[in-house]
Amino acid sequence: MPVVSFFECSRCHQHVQPDKYHTVCPACAGVLYVRYDMDEVKRTASRPNGVDAPQSMWRYADVLPKVDPVTLGEGWTPLLQSRRYPIFIKEEAMNPTGSFKARGMSMAVSMARFYGVKKLTAPSAGNAAGALAAYCAAAGIEANIFMPKDVPFANYLEGVVYGSNVTLVDGIISDCARIVNERKDKEGWFDITTLKEPFRVEGKKTMGYEVVEQLGWSYPDAIFYPTGGGVGLIGMWKAFDEMEKLGWVSGKRPKMIAVQASGCAPMSRAWKEGADVSQFYDNATTFASGLRVPKPYGDYIILDILRKSEGTCVDLSEEEILASLLDWSRNEGILLCPEGAVATAAYDKLIADGFLKSTDSVVIFNTGAGLKYTDMIADVMKVSRPK
Amino acid sequence: MPVVSFFECSRCHQHVQPDKYHTVCPACAGVLYVRYDMDEVKRTASRPNGVDAPQSMWRYADVLPKVDPVTLGEGWTPLLQSRRYPIFIKEEAMNPTGSFKARGMSMAVSMARFYGVKKLTAPSAGNAAGALAAYCAAAGIEANIFMPKDVPFANYLEGVVYGSNVTLVDGIISDCARIVNERKDKEGWFDITTLKEPFRVEGKKTMGYEVVEQLGWSYPDAIFYPTGGGVGLIGMWKAFDEMEKLGWVSGKRPKMIAVQASGCAPMSRAWKEGADVSQFYDNATTFASGLRVPKPYGDYIILDILRKSEGTCVDLSEEEILASLLDWSRNEGILLCPEGAVATAAYDKLIADGFLKSTDSVVIFNTGAGLKYTDMIADVMKVSRPK
Repeated sequence: MPVVSFFECSRCHQHVQPDKYHTVCPACAGVLYVRYDMDEVKRTASRPNGVDAPQSMWRYADVLPKVDPVTLGEGWTPLLQSRRYPIFIKEEAMNPTGSFKARGMSMAVSMARFYGVKKLTAPSAGNAAGALAAYCAAAGIEANIFMPKDVPFANYLEGVVYGSNVTLVDGIISDCARIVNERKDKEGWFDITTLKEPFRVEGKKTMGYEVVEQLGWSYPDAIFYPTGGGVGLIGMWKAFDEMEKLGWVSGKRPKMIAVQASGCAPMSRAWKEGADVSQFYDNATTFASGLRVPKPYGDYIILDILRKSEGTCVDLSEEEILASLLDWSRNEGILLCPEGAVATAAYDKLIADGFLKSTDSVVIFNTGAGLKYTDMIADVMKVSRPK
Repeated sequence: MPVVSFFECSRCHQHVQPDKYHTVCPACAGVLYVRYDMDEVKRTASRPNGVDAPQSMWRYADVLPKVDPVTLGEGWTPLLQSRRYPIFIKEEAMNPTGSFKARGMSMAVSMARFYGVKKLTAPSAGNAAGALAAYCAAAGIEANIFMPKDVPFANYLEGVVYGSNVTLVDGIISDCARIVNERKDKEGWFDITTLKEPFRVEGKKTMGYEVVEQLGWSYPDAIFYPTGGGVGLIGMWKAFDEMEKLGWVSGKRPKMIAVQASGCAPMSRAWKEGADVSQFYDNATTFASGLRVPKPYGDYIILDILRKSEGTCVDLSEEEILASLLDWSRNEGILLCPEGAVATAAYDKLIADGFLKSTDSVVIFNTGAGLKYTDMIADVMKVSRPK
């Protein structure tokens, strides 16, 4: 495991010393990236091979910060082949706490413990809360979590069961973030909000390493990513940078395709307008609750990646999302989370309009377990338990 | 993959030709086991190694029936090390449909397709239904499922979402079984009820192979198994037989410890009485809903395994189960399913009473995702969504 050389601001490129757990760039409040001495990494690291590597995201320890990991078995999730299309589903449901959020939280909570942080806080659209709560329980760190009051019930319950301090807020994640900002200094909470600290990206970047390794150290033609805060998309692009520097992969990078629900589509709107940043999306509403992020903090990074990768951003209606969720459960035996079904619906749309060819090799992220959304899915399907 | 040589009755040892999908022994209605030419398997098979083997239960294809698998990525689940005890949690939550039932159903539905079966039926305490529904969706087979009306809502919803025919029954699994028996012949349904066909055991036996492989091809001192129908316990013991014949493992087999909820404890009662079979357990009730099996069909096999392994059977109260569930979530960051928490509670009890030593190496099966039981857990914790 390499030591962290410095944090680099993604906007103004200032370097920040890793002497303590930093949040954002002290100069411009940009997102900080973790940087290593990549020449040294290249000399000492090698692509993991199946014999010895852990069956978790820690198989990439050579490109993760040197730390004693707080691990619950996160990562190294299966890449499931569709029965009908040249699509692989990256099945992030098979993570601890049933979502991709486990990767970022495993990494960030490990570093919090390393830096001696005792109390953490974050707002969450749902799944980040569950993951934060679980890793804090494992690490013996206090978690102070703020979630919309209408999150899936599973998200609320996991916060409670893991012993976190959970507050449900009458609003969405941006309202939760306001409360975190008001309280964190006086409470002595360290803020690990999405992209407001550098290590959740490091955990999420392992999704990029895994996809490439699982495809035999090669890129697919396109990656579909349900984009709320967009950390995974940002992390994967960082992974591709690193892997190319290390000589682990080469060739044309995948088109990165950010997908959103039409009820909360700030990135899609910004993309259509050709803007460099997004605008706050009013009245965000969708049963793909993880996508209710009205103004992603890393919007400028996401839009840059979509352009560089020759990707795109699309948004889908509630009806399209539900139809795709049922299509995949009934024809493939895979119960996607609503956010994952946004991505499968987007695939259908981009094949129909010619943006992708039906022969393109595609990886679609199912970011969490459909089972965590029983109440939301039952509601949109109008299913209730018969009396 | 070896072809099936014959089915062998576990009770009267009669051989049955594998010309079609059989249910139970035609002579004595005993549980049928799948048998291979083990000399041939020994000549051609080898222990899977990490480089080439699939990251699923199909890494053991050399000891599974020759078939085109209906797979959703089941098996090869993590063995998580406790932070406090010499315990490994075998984390079966990280299976498709969030439970260990995926293994048996992947195998059985694969064989159903192989034999040309078009319609399947089973009663279920919950998780078997979800798995059956998913694999049938993937295989294009009709599933006809009967569940107690008070199953966790997630179990009901997955049946519906995967497109199965789901009937909720005012009763428990034994009432569901009665309806299956009444209807199956006239409807043309093949019955894949627990232990009433030979292939779910073949899928579940991979849990035994995995535990041994993940412990470096050695046995732990004890295995705790939440026992409703007990297929996994039976399957693991069969796996140990096979592995020893193949020379893949040696040494003293683990004590097999069947755990039950006091609200439905037919095996525990039979064990205390020194009986060879169990008696129907009246008024079965527990929030560990998967354990509401009042008369396991394979009771005689389970009791035999407990004796041969020098194991035991214990039952735990609802209060003990909930306390252990909260202990593990708050101190380890692992949200066990209620059935898994029966096993961790049993560990505490067997350490306290001296049956096990605190240095014994132990594997505890968490048979499914705690997240599938949000309604049941919230109910016993008296937690509801704040208004």
